[in-house]
Amino acid sequence: MSKHPLNTFFAPDSIAIIGASRDEKKIPGLLLTFLRRNGFAGEIYPVNPSYESIGDLKCYPSIAAVDKSIDLAIVIIPARAVLSALQECAAAGAKNAIVISSGFAEEGGESADMQAEIAELARRTGMRISGPNAEGFYNEPQRIAATFSPTVDVRPDAPRLLASPRRVGIVAQSGGIGFAIYNRAKAMGVAVSKVISTGNESDLAAGEFLDYMAQDADTDAILMFIEGIRDPHMFVAAARRAAEAGKPVIVTKVGRSGAGERAAASHTASMAGWTAAYDAVFAKYGFIVSHDLDEAVAIAAAFATAPVPRGDRVAVVTVSGGAGAWVADTLATEGLQVPELSQSLQAQVRALIPSYGSPRNPVDITAQAVHSGGLQTIVGLLEQSDDIDVIVVVVSLASETRIPVKREEIKPLIDAQRKPILFFTYTLPSQFARTELAASGIVAFPGITALGRAVSHLVRQSRFKFPGRGAPELSEPVSSLKSVPEKLSEHESKLLLQETGIAVPPGYLIRDRSQLASALSGLMFPVAMKIQSRDIPHKSEAGGVKVNVRDLDEAAAAFDELIARARTYKPDAKIDGVLAEPMARPGVEMIVGTVNDDTFGPIVMVGLGGIATELFKDVVYRPAPVDEAEAMAMIGELKSAALLNGFRGAPKVDTAALAALIVRISQLAAGLKDRVSEIEINPVRVHETGAGITIVDALIAGRG
Amino acid sequence: MSKHPLNTFFAPDSIAIIGASRDEKKIPGLLLTFLRRNGFAGEIYPVNPSYESIGDLKCYPSIAAVDKSIDLAIVIIPARAVLSALQECAAAGAKNAIVISSGFAEEGGESADMQAEIAELARRTGMRISGPNAEGFYNEPQRIAATFSPTVDVRPDAPRLLASPRRVGIVAQSGGIGFAIYNRAKAMGVAVSKVISTGNESDLAAGEFLDYMAQDADTDAILMFIEGIRDPHMFVAAARRAAEAGKPVIVTKVGRSGAGERAAASHTASMAGWTAAYDAVFAKYGFIVSHDLDEAVAIAAAFATAPVPRGDRVAVVTVSGGAGAWVADTLATEGLQVPELSQSLQAQVRALIPSYGSPRNPVDITAQAVHSGGLQTIVGLLEQSDDIDVIVVVVSLASETRIPVKREEIKPLIDAQRKPILFFTYTLPSQFARTELAASGIVAFPGITALGRAVSHLVRQSRFKFPGRGAPELSEPVSSLKSVPEKLSEHESKLLLQETGIAVPPGYLIRDRSQLASALSGLMFPVAMKIQSRDIPHKSEAGGVKVNVRDLDEAAAAFDELIARARTYKPDAKIDGVLAEPMARPGVEMIVGTVNDDTFGPIVMVGLGGIATELFKDVVYRPAPVDEAEAMAMIGELKSAALLNGFRGAPKVDTAALAALIVRISQLAAGLKDRVSEIEINPVRVHETGAGITIVDALIAGRG
Repeated sequence: MSKHPLNTFFAPDSIAIIGASRDEKKIPGLLLTFLRRNGFAGEIYPVNPSYESIGDLKCYPSIAAVDKSIDLAIVIIPARAVLSALQECAAAGAKNAIVISSGFAEEGGESADMQAEIAELARRTGMRISGPNAEGFYNEPQRIAATFSPTVDVRPDAPRLLASPRRVGIVAQSGGIGFAIYNRAKAMGVAVSKVISTGNESDLAAGEFLDYMAQDADTDAILMFIEGIRDPHMFVAAARRAAEAGKPVIVTKVGRSGAGERAAASHTASMAGWTAAYDAVFAKYGFIVSHDLDEAVAIAAAFATAPVPRGDRVAVVTVSGGAGAWVADTLATEGLQVPELSQSLQAQVRALIPSYGSPRNPVDITAQAVHSGGLQTIVGLLEQSDDIDVIVVVVSLASETRIPVKREEIKPLIDAQRKPILFFTYTLPSQFARTELAASGIVAFPGITALGRAVSHLVRQSRFKFPGRGAPELSEPVSSLKSVPEKLSEHESKLLLQETGIAVPPGYLIRDRSQLASALSGLMFPVAMKIQSRDIPHKSEAGGVKVNVRDLDEAAAAFDELIARARTYKPDAKIDGVLAEPMARPGVEMIVGTVNDDTFGPIVMVGLGGIATELFKDVVYRPAPVDEAEAMAMIGELKSAALLNGFRGAPKVDTAALAALIVRISQLAAGLKDRVSEIEINPVRVHETGAGITIVDALIAGRG
Repeated sequence: MSKHPLNTFFAPDSIAIIGASRDEKKIPGLLLTFLRRNGFAGEIYPVNPSYESIGDLKCYPSIAAVDKSIDLAIVIIPARAVLSALQECAAAGAKNAIVISSGFAEEGGESADMQAEIAELARRTGMRISGPNAEGFYNEPQRIAATFSPTVDVRPDAPRLLASPRRVGIVAQSGGIGFAIYNRAKAMGVAVSKVISTGNESDLAAGEFLDYMAQDADTDAILMFIEGIRDPHMFVAAARRAAEAGKPVIVTKVGRSGAGERAAASHTASMAGWTAAYDAVFAKYGFIVSHDLDEAVAIAAAFATAPVPRGDRVAVVTVSGGAGAWVADTLATEGLQVPELSQSLQAQVRALIPSYGSPRNPVDITAQAVHSGGLQTIVGLLEQSDDIDVIVVVVSLASETRIPVKREEIKPLIDAQRKPILFFTYTLPSQFARTELAASGIVAFPGITALGRAVSHLVRQSRFKFPGRGAPELSEPVSSLKSVPEKLSEHESKLLLQETGIAVPPGYLIRDRSQLASALSGLMFPVAMKIQSRDIPHKSEAGGVKVNVRDLDEAAAAFDELIARARTYKPDAKIDGVLAEPMARPGVEMIVGTVNDDTFGPIVMVGLGGIATELFKDVVYRPAPVDEAEAMAMIGELKSAALLNGFRGAPKVDTAALAALIVRISQLAAGLKDRVSEIEINPVRVHETGAGITIVDALIAGRG
């Protein structure tokens, strides 16, 4: 960690501000003000030929004139002057730079060319450059404010509330959102390590900043806001590092809709990419996806304050019956258990609450038990109980003069907590209550849905199995194959699968009517007969499939009909012939496929066949290749997984064989990613356990 | 409205406080303090034999001693003394009473009996009683605080922020939640009419309070928190009245999980009931269901500030590209459109923003355009445009000194808005910003998911078609039928359906092998043959079904086998015989059924047959009976509706015939609710348009 290349970026000993200003209403002036108000202890070198000094600081006419070691140069000048300023910085030996100025790739044209030159400068000189179009960063533990965001301003009347013992790092591809997350984390009393706004990412991109956070000793959990990843290799390596370090990453990815994509594209000139590919990568590394600002911060707050629980049994201790019921419902919706307490525990609790309370769970202690100090005692009992893994305390924190717990009693419980103890307040917490609770290391959660998600993710974190490095290496299963045509027919696709060791049904391509008898002599009737042509990928639509063909006579008639229909359907189609295969045994129909994503490469998917995939979006994706454990996890994540495990008395099906197919297809896609763009096995029939699978249909698209 | 029986309850001229106290730390003292601090203009009569006066108020030894007209008596004394105090109130001619005291039905036993006597007293005397175990109410426009909730206290340093031109009424079966909603509404600047906490509802229950709010001229939208409805007839009538008055009702119903139900039961001794029945009633009357406190308040805030839009096309005007993309994604997730602006509109916008902004939609105006006043101008352009139905303005309101709009420019736009103009802030709004915006009638929405939901519900409200009174009256289709056995066989069920005019397939019940030939002479082969016995409701599980029976010989063999299998499966089953029916034509398999709910009576449901119902919970419910429009709406709400409307090139199916079946079955269930407890038609095959339906299987359960 001590050696991370970005150390001098986030913890510089000296900062030059190119374009520094005395006008505190404008961005350069604001930045200097915030930097100084936060008490930056290093050297500050304002650079601006118009001034001799700014306040008590000497102002330099140029970078070269500084003539001292510069760890970080912050550039806030008109876009056209930026490149030459950066060249001067590099010449002066500056280690890092942040370009705040806008008007580069997000404008396109010549402005985009200027950004390309900035990137080239970074590559050539080794000076690391963040931005342009960035809002800078804030290093909270060291109080280094290299940003003009007003959220980092110091207000003596509103001291920083620090309720969480651990710190959250924030990496955002939007300054507005990055510092809004900081603003909201601060309001909840969540401690922050660094906030970085990555701007247009000419050189330093989000993946590298994630890598820094994954290794930063001050960062315990990470919040990310992503529009589009520009350094996917770095990002994936950093994701792995964060997972290995056990640092949860809570991520929001925008550009999921057409309008969102348009916005991301015009904002920092990033491409939003294919959402499913992002979600596949997030799932692999155990990232927690959130679509809500407060929810994302609440989840981070939970990780920053509470230990990871051992199980999913939650006790709800409440002063309001209605609020307790609501929280219990919310937790149940998240799939958590809110079990009735054991009789012995109920007896202990009953002694501490009035007769109109309830000891069952939710434990309704009523306002009276709060006055008598019962709340802490009951939390203490639950903390000791083996029946409970998480404790949620439901209170009202609106009062400006009282809180429902005594600091001297609750703080030792919180300090020693072996299981999460989280506080939800149904009224909005007063400043007094937040300050009081923070002194005991307690964050007050005001959002009921967000609280439920936070508890759920704490529990899921305890169950997350990192795929580790066991995923198979990329292999080259068909090294002889130079190139794959853009569209293969089913028969050609199946031959390619067979070449790579994937079993396909025995089948004959009957090119000519005269081959019928000899071809079919090798198959058992009944058979399925299917037209084969690269120009007819959707055979059923073309009437190109005949099933349950029972004898040679039927087969002959079917052959003629299929050929005739194909000619009618698409007169100019090049027809290879008719594929005959034995009818597949019954089984659950699934889809397995791969698509090559521009950012993350091949992605493998599995879904229920038929209507479920399309109507209910019941599909799971992972970056390829996957190993068997990952493939089994993918299958388990399907809503329709129940269908595979003996649904309504049906036999369990061969999920191991299905998993093996997913693995093999994912390896194939990864190994041939330069030659194959898509694989679709649809359907594959999964037979009962031990009876394997049948690939009924397959289509491979090559890169030509 | 002026004659509503609860007028004197919510707007009393005189209030007696039974159990009044000088101790301001205890509930009776707090209540008196809040009542006076809010400036209640009527008479206050403290009743307590221990005092001669409380402050400057005369204190009475008993109710009788007051000897003046009492509109409202508030009772805060130990449980055992409550009944006699209420008797005295009634004797003294008090019009209404609120019992704050706890220790009644929620304790069970003798305490529950006391509550029953309170209810009886109300019935006998006509004095209306709210509670026991209630937290009272707050009438905000008239500033009548009949509650000890600290949320109604008056703080001179924190003046009430009123941003919404319209008011929200709050009805809650939990004092904690009711006043928490008030607390959060207040924080957003949403004006409130009345908050009522309904307690144990010995007499006055939630339905009647909803009825009051539906008629109250001060109430424009209603927020409800429900544990379990005790006056369902009143509730349903009030729901209809609210819908007819065009007042949106935003409802949270808890007790959806086992633990939530347990909590509701022990809290105010209410039964949570069957959630689907509640949701069915909510859907019928257009209630908006929310599971989150802040979201519910945000939706109410939208209705209290914005007009109902004409369509679903939303423009997002943002100062942050990232935040704009996020909001656009959120809106798209809610099914709303965020369309690219027309070229002419883009040209007008482009003139007002810097080159690195975007006029497309989201309209990224950048911070620079804010400084130049472009924000208001662009909102004005969008307000005039026919391309847009809703405007969402995305800003940062964290500053304590500046807001991004000028009051003199934005206020006229807001005052004259013909379409919703909603403000989302990605940072938390400062007190300064909230106060400034409130002065222009603007509520700042801080939750991104909640904002999306609020916009979505505004749009849905514009589309909501109230079923009106067109739903068919309850009918008695089989008046001859005295009672229905608890379990009917398929054949018996189908006969009952047929009696009520619902077509079932031609079929013969073959009781004896000797009847085979004559029975089957009337049917076309192939046929389906199914064992018939009230003791074997799940025929397939018992191996009791043979399909595609092709001739008389196969039928004879099938008959023997079905009888033999049934004897093996359940040796003591009383077997009626074997039902033979022609094989049903192909079609989409659906389920139609009814269940009798304890609270709301018969509920009708429709769902996709097969795995979808169970795996994907794709089922829609409504209270029975429904008319054809409602039945069509139910079908339209199914996720699988696409499957009925020509999915993947398949023909459209006969949804009109399916709707007619839903109507008929719902009428049957309503008409026979005292004799029939459940109907399940599973599956019904829906054939292509014009070809009707086939009831393949049916099961009716009677009440015996």
